[in-house]
Amino acid sequence: MKIVAAAKILKANDQLAAETRAKLDAVGVFGVNLVGSPGAGKTTLLEALLAHWKGERWHAHACRGHATSMAPPRPAVIEGDIAGSIDAERIEKHGVPVVQINTQGACHLDASMVAAALADLDLGACDLLFIENVGNLVCTAGFDLGERLRILVLSTSEGDDKAAKYPAIFQSSQALFVTKTDLLPQTNFDLQRITADFRRLVPQGAIFPMAAIRGEGIPAAANWLAEKCRR
Amino acid sequence: MKIVAAAKILKANDQLAAETRAKLDAVGVFGVNLVGSPGAGKTTLLEALLAHWKGERWHAHACRGHATSMAPPRPAVIEGDIAGSIDAERIEKHGVPVVQINTQGACHLDASMVAAALADLDLGACDLLFIENVGNLVCTAGFDLGERLRILVLSTSEGDDKAAKYPAIFQSSQALFVTKTDLLPQTNFDLQRITADFRRLVPQGAIFPMAAIRGEGIPAAANWLAEKCRR
Repeated sequence: MKIVAAAKILKANDQLAAETRAKLDAVGVFGVNLVGSPGAGKTTLLEALLAHWKGERWHAHACRGHATSMAPPRPAVIEGDIAGSIDAERIEKHGVPVVQINTQGACHLDASMVAAALADLDLGACDLLFIENVGNLVCTAGFDLGERLRILVLSTSEGDDKAAKYPAIFQSSQALFVTKTDLLPQTNFDLQRITADFRRLVPQGAIFPMAAIRGEGIPAAANWLAEKCRR
Repeated sequence: MKIVAAAKILKANDQLAAETRAKLDAVGVFGVNLVGSPGAGKTTLLEALLAHWKGERWHAHACRGHATSMAPPRPAVIEGDIAGSIDAERIEKHGVPVVQINTQGACHLDASMVAAALADLDLGACDLLFIENVGNLVCTAGFDLGERLRILVLSTSEGDDKAAKYPAIFQSSQALFVTKTDLLPQTNFDLQRITADFRRLVPQGAIFPMAAIRGEGIPAAANWLAEKCRR
């Protein structure tokens, strides 16, 4: 009985997610589901990307803005957290439309939460929608939110054994953003090991190492994302 | 209907956990539930504690062994992971009894898993049982495993905003072990902020900062644990 119910919930989620994907496609909005552990650096990554596209100063660094001939994407953000609005407030400072979802205890976003949040966004005014999931390397894996791209954010300080220990989330992601590479000298994280592990699970997956706090690696990731959302 | 089922599951879990606690009390085993994000450093903390109590060399450091007049505790470990036995293999190298639970997708341990694992341990040969939970700052909060003490392991690299974002797990823990203090100079982590946040939620809570990889802060935490399990 329990298993049947769980399958039903997942089916309803998948159906809703497919509808969201079709809706976003119809208005030319590229959805990105950002997943990762608590503290992996998902919000800092977003802040660095937003600063890059706006050519803003980011920490001590003056961002050079969009390096290609294309106009930068117009981003919007949905923030998923159990409680509070810390992350949404950080995003808001960058002048980008943001909606905070409070899951009130739930350990992941689902398609119905995202569908509800979409009602509060002007989809005509954006073409790249980031959905920052609850910090969780387990429960977020099974829930399609209607995105076109799932990015797994993994920080070097978490260790390089995570693909072996949390295979589902790696397997369901199309890109791996390895954050906090500025901490590499202080950790025993092996970039080659995680690259090999991810490639084994997702042969076509993209990998971007970065130190978002310093803006390092951000231009490459930003350009790749901008091209993705233009296809 | 769904809510009733979930409540029933939790009630069954609490009942089983109470039985486990009584069973451990009866044989003089002090149970510790270690919770924290993936990569917070739970296994490294255990390795450092085990090395300390055995007076083993730990990384570049010769552990000085147990600093008080008491004999060190006799530890055993239950490792909870979604897949694999990476952590159990690390513990086994320290010559300590260890049982690996594979949750096969489940995002937290529950009392029934722990009760089953206990059958594979010689409880007469240990007096301190560590249960390392699945890396998860959300789902582990609601499940009593039959422990006497819940320790939340939080690494400085995760950021100091976690008590505000994941209140349930902080509120349900009696101790906060702040790991990776060797990374403090490289992060914007504010030890005073997390201390204040934790004290607000758990006024009697114990806080131990440490850099387990260097053995720093380990003697204080090891002595505190040894005294706890002797009461």
